[in-house]
Amino acid sequence: MTAHTGSGLLAEVTRGKQVESRHLGRAVVVDADGSVVWSCGDVDAAVFPRSTVKSLLAIELVESGAADRLGLSDEALALACASHNGEEAHARVAASMLAAVGRDVAALECGTHWPTYEPAARALAAAHQSACPLHNNCSGKHAGLICLACDQGVDPVGYIDPAHEIQRRVTDVLASMTQTPHTDANRGTDGCSMPTYAVPLKALAHGFARFGSGVGLSSERAKATQRLREAVAAHPFMVAGTGRYDTTVMNNFETRAFIKMGAEGVMIAALPEQGLGFAIKTDDGANRAAEVAMSALLHHFGGESLCRTAKDHAIFAETKTQTLRNWQGVTVGEIRAALTI
Amino acid sequence: MTAHTGSGLLAEVTRGKQVESRHLGRAVVVDADGSVVWSCGDVDAAVFPRSTVKSLLAIELVESGAADRLGLSDEALALACASHNGEEAHARVAASMLAAVGRDVAALECGTHWPTYEPAARALAAAHQSACPLHNNCSGKHAGLICLACDQGVDPVGYIDPAHEIQRRVTDVLASMTQTPHTDANRGTDGCSMPTYAVPLKALAHGFARFGSGVGLSSERAKATQRLREAVAAHPFMVAGTGRYDTTVMNNFETRAFIKMGAEGVMIAALPEQGLGFAIKTDDGANRAAEVAMSALLHHFGGESLCRTAKDHAIFAETKTQTLRNWQGVTVGEIRAALTI
Repeated sequence: MTAHTGSGLLAEVTRGKQVESRHLGRAVVVDADGSVVWSCGDVDAAVFPRSTVKSLLAIELVESGAADRLGLSDEALALACASHNGEEAHARVAASMLAAVGRDVAALECGTHWPTYEPAARALAAAHQSACPLHNNCSGKHAGLICLACDQGVDPVGYIDPAHEIQRRVTDVLASMTQTPHTDANRGTDGCSMPTYAVPLKALAHGFARFGSGVGLSSERAKATQRLREAVAAHPFMVAGTGRYDTTVMNNFETRAFIKMGAEGVMIAALPEQGLGFAIKTDDGANRAAEVAMSALLHHFGGESLCRTAKDHAIFAETKTQTLRNWQGVTVGEIRAALTI
Repeated sequence: MTAHTGSGLLAEVTRGKQVESRHLGRAVVVDADGSVVWSCGDVDAAVFPRSTVKSLLAIELVESGAADRLGLSDEALALACASHNGEEAHARVAASMLAAVGRDVAALECGTHWPTYEPAARALAAAHQSACPLHNNCSGKHAGLICLACDQGVDPVGYIDPAHEIQRRVTDVLASMTQTPHTDANRGTDGCSMPTYAVPLKALAHGFARFGSGVGLSSERAKATQRLREAVAAHPFMVAGTGRYDTTVMNNFETRAFIKMGAEGVMIAALPEQGLGFAIKTDDGANRAAEVAMSALLHHFGGESLCRTAKDHAIFAETKTQTLRNWQGVTVGEIRAALTI
């Protein structure tokens, strides 16, 4: 009855003296030429990248000149790449993006959920307000597509449809960046109703090696990816929010590391100076395992050129072995990276 | 780099045409004599049972006569076995248990968290109230121990300590029911600060075969376990709450099935009429996989004596393959049992 997997051990969760849970998965580090530097498990198999590719979906907004014409701020560009907590600032910036093209919350087709950051949800409730699509963690991505459509003179209605002109344009960029066809055959639907296309994990990592380094991209595209990376580095809070892994790590490393989590345990990163791209998929969809594994990989492959200070090392030490505390604040175990690098 | 596991495939999560995530784990079905009827993976290895054993921890409250002397309601006994949502009724019944022994929320040593049922958390916030230990999902278990201590003339302060007289008494019952020594060597600390002792998965299942059937128990203990099962069957809402798996299934099957989820993907069940006990531990700690796997096992091994009506079958059909919908209500995939039974 033992299952055979094409995966390796990524992380362990302990309680007291015992390993209570463990996470298998696949992970790969690729250089800008597409050579595999390190891998674990079957990295040729396709995964849905989910929200990890939001920054790739935002390229056209910048490369087309729309962002400049509309005067979108760096905060807005960071939010276009975000899976945010639905905190007040996130909702406010999403609204400002829509206002830049004379639209409002009614234009969003992502659906509504309450802020995932619970204090923000409770603050809304305490003010006797309700959640709206601006609080959806994907509202910045959706607002970005609406901005692009309006700038290009395209009716944004139905922008989530795979056949919509704007959706086709950003999908073409995705296909180009990941060098993988995006067709009906590899399409699924994401939580926010946008399509998500399965791509090989290795191709996803290579896409982010290129996104980070600009290698192999046209000069216009390389400029656009640099602008997006700098916007995110300047406003890492916009990409996720209070207490979130991506925000914490990027807040420390600024333009030296680009990181993005996706649903179901997908995570990507780019180290622009090293020209490396990273991609992880946990078999079971657990984000907690992807976090500790990513910190172990970034710490190892970033080397001394990424970690220059004791604080730089400390960030990875704290995030590749995370202490688990109970409701009384007592340490009960830890979640720790368990990859063989 | 492929990991070898002592586990089998329990569940798959699909998106569009592709399996996006999958969950490995161990599972076992045991009869009241301790014979393994069916198993998947290494079921001799020890797991922390976490909240699955709350009903075993409540036995002494009934068997000692304390519950009767204190006039505890069936709702209160069900709450003593609960990992509840922190809804208003849960907090109210926990408070009533403490009041029965002249105590209040200050006696609880479980720590505070906001209701896990988000509408309940937002309702508290809208009323400008804060969460308190009554909303902790374990407050019923803690209130039960405080009731037992006060009835027995023992100072309840420090009841969460492994060396406290009341803790030792309920731990002795646990050890007896699971026929496994409970010592410093196999002890961890649970989220609510109580000890949790690792026991072989098979022993956990056997404990619940005995809990359900009474086989091998003294007549006093068998009466106590029957009372607890009947209390839970009469008030399945108290054990979990709105939208929860345990509540949904037990609400349908009443005394014919006893189910309890624990943290990190542990789940137990008993089918009293068949004399069977069930235990599942997902490797990765995912509860969603334990749910679909448990429904598949109960449906199969419960047979026609458990499922007597079309509705009975429908409950398992809906819970062993659960439809995944996105924020717009669109079906995007499913989570489904994938055990080989």
